[in-house]
Amino acid sequence: MGAGSPTLRAARDEAARGLRGMLGADVPFADAVSRDGALVAGTPAGSPAIAALDLGADLGKVGDEGFLIRPATIAGKRATVLAANTDVGVLYGVFRLLQRLQAGHPVDASSVVEAPRIRHRVLNHWDNLDRTVERGYAGFSLWDWHKLPDYVDPRIVDYARANASIGINGTVLTNVNANATSLLPEYLGKAAALAGALRPYGIRVYLTARFSAPVEIGALKTADPLDPEVAAWWKRKADEIYAFIPDFGGFLVKANSEGQPGPQDYGRSHAAGANVLADAVAPHGGVVMWRAFVYSNDVPDDRAKQAFAEFQPLDGQFRPNVLVQVKNGPIDFQPREPFHPLFGAMPKTPLMMEFQVTQEYLGFATHLVYLAPLFEEVLRADTHAKGAGSTVARVIDGSLHGHARTGIAGVANVGTDRNWCGGVFACANWHAFGRLAWDHSLTSDAIADEWIRGTLGSDPALVAAVKEMMLGSREAAVDYMTPLGLHHLMAEGHHYGPGPWVKEARRADWTSVYYHRADAGGIGFDRTPTGSNAVAQYLPPVADAFSRLDTVPEKYLLWFHRVGWGHRMASGRTLWEELVGRYHAGVEAVRRMQATWRSLEGRVDAERFEQVRAFLAIQEKEARWWRDASVLYFQAFSGKPLPEGYERPEHDLAWYQAIRKRYVPGH
Amino acid sequence: MGAGSPTLRAARDEAARGLRGMLGADVPFADAVSRDGALVAGTPAGSPAIAALDLGADLGKVGDEGFLIRPATIAGKRATVLAANTDVGVLYGVFRLLQRLQAGHPVDASSVVEAPRIRHRVLNHWDNLDRTVERGYAGFSLWDWHKLPDYVDPRIVDYARANASIGINGTVLTNVNANATSLLPEYLGKAAALAGALRPYGIRVYLTARFSAPVEIGALKTADPLDPEVAAWWKRKADEIYAFIPDFGGFLVKANSEGQPGPQDYGRSHAAGANVLADAVAPHGGVVMWRAFVYSNDVPDDRAKQAFAEFQPLDGQFRPNVLVQVKNGPIDFQPREPFHPLFGAMPKTPLMMEFQVTQEYLGFATHLVYLAPLFEEVLRADTHAKGAGSTVARVIDGSLHGHARTGIAGVANVGTDRNWCGGVFACANWHAFGRLAWDHSLTSDAIADEWIRGTLGSDPALVAAVKEMMLGSREAAVDYMTPLGLHHLMAEGHHYGPGPWVKEARRADWTSVYYHRADAGGIGFDRTPTGSNAVAQYLPPVADAFSRLDTVPEKYLLWFHRVGWGHRMASGRTLWEELVGRYHAGVEAVRRMQATWRSLEGRVDAERFEQVRAFLAIQEKEARWWRDASVLYFQAFSGKPLPEGYERPEHDLAWYQAIRKRYVPGH
Repeated sequence: MGAGSPTLRAARDEAARGLRGMLGADVPFADAVSRDGALVAGTPAGSPAIAALDLGADLGKVGDEGFLIRPATIAGKRATVLAANTDVGVLYGVFRLLQRLQAGHPVDASSVVEAPRIRHRVLNHWDNLDRTVERGYAGFSLWDWHKLPDYVDPRIVDYARANASIGINGTVLTNVNANATSLLPEYLGKAAALAGALRPYGIRVYLTARFSAPVEIGALKTADPLDPEVAAWWKRKADEIYAFIPDFGGFLVKANSEGQPGPQDYGRSHAAGANVLADAVAPHGGVVMWRAFVYSNDVPDDRAKQAFAEFQPLDGQFRPNVLVQVKNGPIDFQPREPFHPLFGAMPKTPLMMEFQVTQEYLGFATHLVYLAPLFEEVLRADTHAKGAGSTVARVIDGSLHGHARTGIAGVANVGTDRNWCGGVFACANWHAFGRLAWDHSLTSDAIADEWIRGTLGSDPALVAAVKEMMLGSREAAVDYMTPLGLHHLMAEGHHYGPGPWVKEARRADWTSVYYHRADAGGIGFDRTPTGSNAVAQYLPPVADAFSRLDTVPEKYLLWFHRVGWGHRMASGRTLWEELVGRYHAGVEAVRRMQATWRSLEGRVDAERFEQVRAFLAIQEKEARWWRDASVLYFQAFSGKPLPEGYERPEHDLAWYQAIRKRYVPGH
Repeated sequence: MGAGSPTLRAARDEAARGLRGMLGADVPFADAVSRDGALVAGTPAGSPAIAALDLGADLGKVGDEGFLIRPATIAGKRATVLAANTDVGVLYGVFRLLQRLQAGHPVDASSVVEAPRIRHRVLNHWDNLDRTVERGYAGFSLWDWHKLPDYVDPRIVDYARANASIGINGTVLTNVNANATSLLPEYLGKAAALAGALRPYGIRVYLTARFSAPVEIGALKTADPLDPEVAAWWKRKADEIYAFIPDFGGFLVKANSEGQPGPQDYGRSHAAGANVLADAVAPHGGVVMWRAFVYSNDVPDDRAKQAFAEFQPLDGQFRPNVLVQVKNGPIDFQPREPFHPLFGAMPKTPLMMEFQVTQEYLGFATHLVYLAPLFEEVLRADTHAKGAGSTVARVIDGSLHGHARTGIAGVANVGTDRNWCGGVFACANWHAFGRLAWDHSLTSDAIADEWIRGTLGSDPALVAAVKEMMLGSREAAVDYMTPLGLHHLMAEGHHYGPGPWVKEARRADWTSVYYHRADAGGIGFDRTPTGSNAVAQYLPPVADAFSRLDTVPEKYLLWFHRVGWGHRMASGRTLWEELVGRYHAGVEAVRRMQATWRSLEGRVDAERFEQVRAFLAIQEKEARWWRDASVLYFQAFSGKPLPEGYERPEHDLAWYQAIRKRYVPGH
């Protein structure tokens, strides 16, 4: 492979380090093969040995980021070939080879052809310039802006390695609640230093663009996207950014949402806003990721409907280098939401998925909630946009509507904590996001298996036990927080703990009562035609299923329907009994995780064992907090006793309502 | 030594880990000696082998924290004895033994008798409950309040180990700009969890007390220290704290200073304020550390005089368990200040020293400035309070005025950064503070030697080269920032970089022009009898020396005197020439450090080598910034050209004045 590019050097270093670590011996990483067992890796353009293998047909399938790995005989010797069209393809191949070794596949038995299904696989860092991280529970921002560009912490390279190992190829450095300061030359120089450290690992840097930047730092009187001076300003700014960062990825924008400025401040549409930025970066090959997470202060309608109402009519009006970035569900990263109705509804526009890897609504870093099942549930959901099988995954990978420019974003959970994500298991969610971004056909089970082996060890009993904990954990969280389609019941502001009683806020749709609508008559948000009719935003087969009480999945029951406390569930229990049962089942599931973990003492290093043990104890305590606060609160409406056989709450409702949490991180 | 207390277990673990690491073999850590080479460690009360050695006379000298180490023959075998009166004395002895081994002394040749000279050796953490650290340049606070008390990060134990290894026995967890929230039961439970982790290492926890807490969290109408309800509230609060933390150390208080509430809000003295808290903790054995760093908004007099003016008249009015904590100099942790005139001036009151380990005014964590020479300069300064030899060290160790209760505080530079202090060399200042707190007779040279060997290696050429860098570094910083007695010339607020031109601030004494008073006629603050007469706060021999132009040390010239630009210096140069020369010498000294460090490539691990290299480049750049900005600014008053032979500034004065630094850490 020779000296090669920085990317090839990184690939060789990873191979050497990983193979030595796993096999206890150096595997020759060679171009010419002189003995059995060598790894021959490279591109046809860079490696005569690879070129000689005539892999053209197969390499034609892997594009500019994929790779193939296969056994081969070269000069009479047994070898493993790792070939790609690009250096970063080789790097990705090395990481996959190492993952497969960890999963028990011998090097020379591997035969793999892979290419990512989605082009832009990016992390969104909600990191502020003062190093606080909005909704961050893993310490503070990795970007030490003060010391940049003069000093780049070695952790940045480790961050790049971790991302490359799961195929992430982009990172948005700054918070979507954006700060125009990050576009000043002083900060562009700092971002360029980070870009330089990330580049060898195939990772491009993106920035959030504050829509009012032309006014705030450009001395213009307006940021109207149709004003020629504004367009010229953004063009100059883009040119300047590309002078600092030649492979700059582009902008991510949150506009006219939750107080952020945007094109509607000037009576212009989101398309007009996105396009002025898109035109600025287009000559340089950049993209604009424009968030669909918008809801107006003025619209009293169901918040779940607003993004669709704003964006669906704009389909076809965006420049080709705009991707509209849509959260997985129509509210906001709740423990469970139905898929966002925009998926499948904007065939002319590439839609990006926005998942939240950080656990804003899922217990922060201290709750073991493995998110792959949530991601998988959304990706597999069928929009029926082009008939059955029109999954959300096929919308975002471009195959359904024929888009070549595709993307997926994960709101990062990475910070300065020594374990990167605030907790051992939180890192599984970073891993799962990256792996699904690369290949959305992977299962939660397969990803958990791979992550456990890479993180905790390959002892089959350990892998089986930990996998069971992980796979059931998201359903447990749904149960102890918001079962049966309930949503947005958390404490106000910091979102730490339960707050179903929240009814005073700057906006009605920031309260809990707006969403659960409980009273003596029942509970749930009627989104059928008798209510807000949000179901109509889905295509008919989906809308029909969600609309009807006899076909709506019970997991979405209270999302779409308002039903009486005595409503009979599939279990034969009343809704009240089912609700209480779910809340208790959630706590019981956490206790089973605790028992499983205790059984693993001695099989996991003491430090991580103790952290997970302590975190599970926090999770059990907080699951009870959620359960007891919620059940007591809803009981005041249902007027029914707690069914027999369940633990009684430790305190009365007033006690839970009086809890005030201070200095909650990430807020 | 047996199972013993947690402290003894810690001692045994440290000995086992350290000796194995350094000697490559297990040294038997034994009570009964069966072969040569054992380490017999313990207390007479806990170890029959130690008791049998009849060490009473020697142990009588080491008090309740000291130890002795000596070779001995026990049961015919060669052994090393480590004996102390308490378990923590054994722990301290183990660390000293390891330090001596690293310095090249064989285990069995060590013969040491040590006891600390100062009783309360504490770090002051200016850490806020949101984990920001005021004047912190090493990331964020180590205290993860959100997860406490349920989870205590293992780094807390490592923090305790590091402190115990240098003899620090107390830590004030919270910022002197205090938050009454930290006194709520919820937070006391969190502090108790930290105290539990620190206790085995001999470290007591202290908290800052916000003087208005009785009003803010106690629902009282007043915090008047003479109000019986206020006194009763503090007593109850102290009782509550001790129920959480039985060995709670006490309170640190900043009152009536920089906006903090205090007794003067009610027309009461600092003594009255300190005493009400002292009475509350006295039954539990606690102390109050009451800061003398006060200056009034109303007093137009020289700020350097105010602490003395407030506190000296109160001598004799404090309870016995109050220590008055005095900064090393009369302004505020400048690169160089004369010693604080309160030292020696309050014979009836135990005075604590407050040093700043974090480099607020000394280039943050990126400037290599070894502070031991600064600390040493102050400790050796002679107050003449009881004639020649009445050093500051003898004031604070109690020997001058016969105080048994003594203390020394260091404002911590420790944070979440992986290297603890933000930079490799910043950690040397933590080390130096602890070692001088234990034994103020140690030299900067000896401490540097010990730190280098423990941190970077024992290669004599490496030790010599690094020591030379360290020992000259503080003088370099004085030269490139504020030579010849200049002070308080930094940028406003964040204190990052030069700001000699600062003249607008909420208070005159927060400006730079207040301190340097430069005009065409000259420069400097006249603190002689013709000026503010601050010199009169020193005892006559000191006051006389500082007052007279022919006897004032040139390093304090512009602190005490206002002189013309043509004033002739000892070097024969004019003041202007000398000033310019010093600024340039500071930059040259940094460049020599860079050259020395470059010569060490390959002798230091690559990661730390690169960090120090990058940091020295930052320091060189910022030293030029200080130099050029300051010289250009003063040149406008001196009206004289830059002497020949010096580098010209890169930019004009306006360019330097236009620099605005954003998101500076620690502010």
